[in-house]
Amino acid sequence: MTYISPKAVIEEHVYIGRNTTILAGVQIKRGTIIEDNCTIGKPSRVQMSRFQELVRLSPTRLEFEDYDSVVDTQTVIGENAMLHSGTIIFAGTTLDENVITEDNVIVRWDTHVGAFTKLMLAGFIGAHITIGKYSRVGGLLGNRTTIGDYVTTFGNLLHSYKQYGANRVEPAPTIEDYVMIGYDSNVIGGVTVGRRSYVAAGCTVSKDVPPETVVTGYNQHRPMSTWQGSLRDDYLASFPDDLLKDE
Amino acid sequence: MTYISPKAVIEEHVYIGRNTTILAGVQIKRGTIIEDNCTIGKPSRVQMSRFQELVRLSPTRLEFEDYDSVVDTQTVIGENAMLHSGTIIFAGTTLDENVITEDNVIVRWDTHVGAFTKLMLAGFIGAHITIGKYSRVGGLLGNRTTIGDYVTTFGNLLHSYKQYGANRVEPAPTIEDYVMIGYDSNVIGGVTVGRRSYVAAGCTVSKDVPPETVVTGYNQHRPMSTWQGSLRDDYLASFPDDLLKDE
Amino acid sequence: MTYISPKAVIEEHVYIGRNTTILAGVQIKRGTIIEDNCTIGKPSRVQMSRFQELVRLSPTRLEFEDYDSVVDTQTVIGENAMLHSGTIIFAGTTLDENVITEDNVIVRWDTHVGAFTKLMLAGFIGAHITIGKYSRVGGLLGNRTTIGDYVTTFGNLLHSYKQYGANRVEPAPTIEDYVMIGYDSNVIGGVTVGRRSYVAAGCTVSKDVPPETVVTGYNQHRPMSTWQGSLRDDYLASFPDDLLKDE
Repeated sequence: MTYISPKAVIEEHVYIGRNTTILAGVQIKRGTIIEDNCTIGKPSRVQMSRFQELVRLSPTRLEFEDYDSVVDTQTVIGENAMLHSGTIIFAGTTLDENVITEDNVIVRWDTHVGAFTKLMLAGFIGAHITIGKYSRVGGLLGNRTTIGDYVTTFGNLLHSYKQYGANRVEPAPTIEDYVMIGYDSNVIGGVTVGRRSYVAAGCTVSKDVPPETVVTGYNQHRPMSTWQGSLRDDYLASFPDDLLKDE
Repeated sequence: MTYISPKAVIEEHVYIGRNTTILAGVQIKRGTIIEDNCTIGKPSRVQMSRFQELVRLSPTRLEFEDYDSVVDTQTVIGENAMLHSGTIIFAGTTLDENVITEDNVIVRWDTHVGAFTKLMLAGFIGAHITIGKYSRVGGLLGNRTTIGDYVTTFGNLLHSYKQYGANRVEPAPTIEDYVMIGYDSNVIGGVTVGRRSYVAAGCTVSKDVPPETVVTGYNQHRPMSTWQGSLRDDYLASFPDDLLKDE
Repeated sequence: MTYISPKAVIEEHVYIGRNTTILAGVQIKRGTIIEDNCTIGKPSRVQMSRFQELVRLSPTRLEFEDYDSVVDTQTVIGENAMLHSGTIIFAGTTLDENVITEDNVIVRWDTHVGAFTKLMLAGFIGAHITIGKYSRVGGLLGNRTTIGDYVTTFGNLLHSYKQYGANRVEPAPTIEDYVMIGYDSNVIGGVTVGRRSYVAAGCTVSKDVPPETVVTGYNQHRPMSTWQGSLRDDYLASFPDDLLKDE
């Protein structure tokens, strides 16, 4: 059974599927589709800590309305979004217009996703992240990652975890506009991947990558201008004239 | 609450769990178990585009029956299948008899899975894929991948994404019979991995692999006949006499 | 709609979300929160085989109560646990007190998770596994893996799969106390990673790793004492005095 919080605002021309939960402070704009088994506006870690205190102290068993009541931030799903089954969007996050999330994508709290961006393949998007417009993003994104416009990334954008313990705030990668990062590549720590660079699948990046660079293997860089074969022509030529032909 | 479309056909001796959705055009054959939170016959991308048009144009809020009505392809779940919790099978896909899907497996539209094959570990199986019989398949499979019989693959079978934009049709890998591809390996582009080859975990394959070859690291091949240790004996000897002992 | 088996025991000061299923033999201790769409005490492979026989033989369609009735092992969720949305815990597994599971984590049957451990990032934890206390564990863990205390692992701990077929019992990795294993690293077969070692992201480990060793690339080891930069100081100094400062 679908639950819509009395504190949520659903515009007209919106479709919401079965067993989906829309929590307090959520605003869903017109033209948007949310499929089955989604949760929108899910409590952040801080909000859940507050709820856990309530559970411990309350003399009676708490209800779903009590869970809903701990959410005190705004979540915005822009116009014409398409959120597929099992999507979870945490509270405080904003999706601009025409965003698509594939099945089982998770987006944590206080993150911003730009217009026409597609979140793919059960991607796990952390908190406090900024993703630009017209990008396609899968994989795991650590908290505070920054991704530009027209980026394609299926890699994992990670903290370096040089210390035990989870309360530190570690630097996260910055991915500039027009970059491609292949599936199963790992970009580690506070590095920057420069504009129009191409990181092949299965690579490791732990140092800054200059613009228009091809990365293979373990931190192996070379300028895209010296790369043999059709990659340079194919990749660079695909920007920007045909951008708007994208699905 | 479980939903079964009036346009679905469920044979006898079938079990369907809680909060599972069976959409239009689905046929479920006898002896099959579908656990909780599954969706069978989920609309394809084209069907969803049509639904999105309806949402935008309809003067009233659409219901689940309207969503169900956009599915116009057939989905077949063969005899004695076991689909574990959270399995999503898109419309137009056929599973032959005795297929198993582990929890949270996704299979997209117009894909064919052969008899006695097991889809594992929250695998994400794309569209227009052909998988043979008696195989075990996890990881991510890009659209139009081909997998033979008695294959074990936990790797990712990928497009090369040499261009920005999602509407191109890129070549995908072909995995021949009896191949093993280890966890977290990436096979990229329109390459073929030949019969009885063994790709270790964590490798990258972007060139054709001949039959009976061992692959390690980044495109490093050697004939299985020169491989030291027990791998050759263990692996080759495991075909085909004991095939039917598999779970 | 949430289902709680008549054979489950729920203590006071417990919160259970929407569309969550608590099966037979489950004990949930006080202070615990279980969010939406979770399944606790899900039948193991053996229990499901028994259920499949019932489905094939029963003259009438089976109900959820019949599914519930095949579970004959005990599942324990300790005090003050926090199980986020979509968590699946199979039957026979025990979580000690103060365990956290992030969204969509799966823990299979007959596994034991120590106190204050956090299971992360849609991790897929196999069967017959032992995980110590104060650890943080993501990735894929093959059956019979052993993980110590104060471990951080986002890697995949795998069998070597040297033979086709799934009924063999293969050796699995052992990860000793205070080890860090980076995201997307693969540890393969019955190897041991020694105390306080650090495996960088994206590595492959198929040989034993001595204590206080840094691993990069493909089985490249060096003593942590010879590692340049701040890793040694940062990592080793983070144990054990500030352990209890962890979230």
